[in-house]
Amino acid sequence: MILHKITEVREKIKEWKKEGLTIGLIPTMGALHAGHKSLIDKSVEKCDRTVVSVFVNPIQFCPGEDLDKYPRTLDKDNELCEQSNVDIVFAPTPKEMYGEGHILSNDFLTYVIPPYFYVNKLCGKSRVGHFDGVCTVVNKLFNIVQPDFAFFGEKDAQQLIIIKKMVKDLNIPIEIIPCPIVREPSGLALSSRNKYLKEEQKEYAVALSKILFNIKSCYKKGITDTNALLETAYTYLTPNHNLEYLEFCDENTLEGKSTADDNTRVFIAVKIGDVRLIDNILLK
Amino acid sequence: MILHKITEVREKIKEWKKEGLTIGLIPTMGALHAGHKSLIDKSVEKCDRTVVSVFVNPIQFCPGEDLDKYPRTLDKDNELCEQSNVDIVFAPTPKEMYGEGHILSNDFLTYVIPPYFYVNKLCGKSRVGHFDGVCTVVNKLFNIVQPDFAFFGEKDAQQLIIIKKMVKDLNIPIEIIPCPIVREPSGLALSSRNKYLKEEQKEYAVALSKILFNIKSCYKKGITDTNALLETAYTYLTPNHNLEYLEFCDENTLEGKSTADDNTRVFIAVKIGDVRLIDNILLK
Repeated sequence: MILHKITEVREKIKEWKKEGLTIGLIPTMGALHAGHKSLIDKSVEKCDRTVVSVFVNPIQFCPGEDLDKYPRTLDKDNELCEQSNVDIVFAPTPKEMYGEGHILSNDFLTYVIPPYFYVNKLCGKSRVGHFDGVCTVVNKLFNIVQPDFAFFGEKDAQQLIIIKKMVKDLNIPIEIIPCPIVREPSGLALSSRNKYLKEEQKEYAVALSKILFNIKSCYKKGITDTNALLETAYTYLTPNHNLEYLEFCDENTLEGKSTADDNTRVFIAVKIGDVRLIDNILLK
Repeated sequence: MILHKITEVREKIKEWKKEGLTIGLIPTMGALHAGHKSLIDKSVEKCDRTVVSVFVNPIQFCPGEDLDKYPRTLDKDNELCEQSNVDIVFAPTPKEMYGEGHILSNDFLTYVIPPYFYVNKLCGKSRVGHFDGVCTVVNKLFNIVQPDFAFFGEKDAQQLIIIKKMVKDLNIPIEIIPCPIVREPSGLALSSRNKYLKEEQKEYAVALSKILFNIKSCYKKGITDTNALLETAYTYLTPNHNLEYLEFCDENTLEGKSTADDNTRVFIAVKIGDVRLIDNILLK
């Protein structure tokens, strides 16, 4: 069932709560792929009812980013959800989420702001304000759906860590379930933005996962100096790869690491042409 | 029943929710007086169960403010609550609310930040960061108690308006119930900070309500120019009154008003010695 209004969702949720049913939420921006599908399957298995939100959230896009051209495929998304036994697809308009005139600046809108230490690195460094927008909309979706569990992909690992921190800091009564990255046979992590890649760019894109897999295998062989691990990446990079960052951080606190350990997650972001891709791996 | 741990509160709440009972929350910093009592009575009347939180929230005090000397009277507060049929007094420590080492800066803590337009005026102008701390702790208390209704006094009208805005912006499934100011026979609005006033200062303090009542009566007589209304205040002010602000704002949006109408609220803040007092009145 596809619903566009907050009040409609609340009604359904109220019914379910009365019956004592558990609810799972998967917040998405649509353009669903097998990665999302793995989150949906986990929720359908774990929870009595599953809600997928499909909302391209304007306040998490920075100036110059791809808000207008971000892929919107609601009919296909809805089909995938129906086939996967999702109970509600919640697809609000920006007006429904942010009100008449939907003024989005922090002059007129209450924001949920994650801690600077978690934000001022990795994707947050180039995407200023991005995680403020993410936390704010996720908080809103949490309040609308009031799920018992919410499912997030490890693909966006910084986002996942920041959401977990928000849940802890604000005492949100929801359990966050992390779900592993789904990859193409080539190793390329699935992403809605892969649609932007031309055929030859897709070949370059494989470098991200190759770099990460190789770092992990070097770590398993006993190399823990993160500078040494970092250097192994350059074999895979060509002038077609615009490396934004390759960093080693603690899995929970996002603290930078000079010596890798099992709790270290390696984060990479590369621009190929106009397409910005991210990937990551836990060394454990 | 007095509880100090979040998990204990959650357990009770869970029981009540299972039984389908409605819950009212009154967030306070303790030092309860007849103003708080009026909120409590309203909740006890309206809701099946009532929770009063007593927590002197460190992150809403600005540098140089009265965090350490703020009155703490938990035994008396608990007594008043028991006599008023409150079901739970929730009195957590700062450590319980903000964690081990409770690091309170926005480097390491997720904050809920109200819109700049609502904050950059009246009390927010001199108390920088105050409403960030208020919104963050209220959000936390909302998530811990998950009440159906939350009761706030009109005494802190800017706070009330900001909380209502937060609830709307973040789709928090809670109804905010505003409660009228309780006054001494002299007109002085009740406040936990009145305890700081020496006897002769109390006499000066009456000026705040006198100014507001007089402005309202002038408005009722047909004066709507806010500059003219403002000028009527000076009769009541002496060198012992340090006027911080006297402003006319829209009751819902906090927009400044040059012409008063029924939706105009008049806000005043005065320092008498070291004691900062606030009051307000709706012209309707």
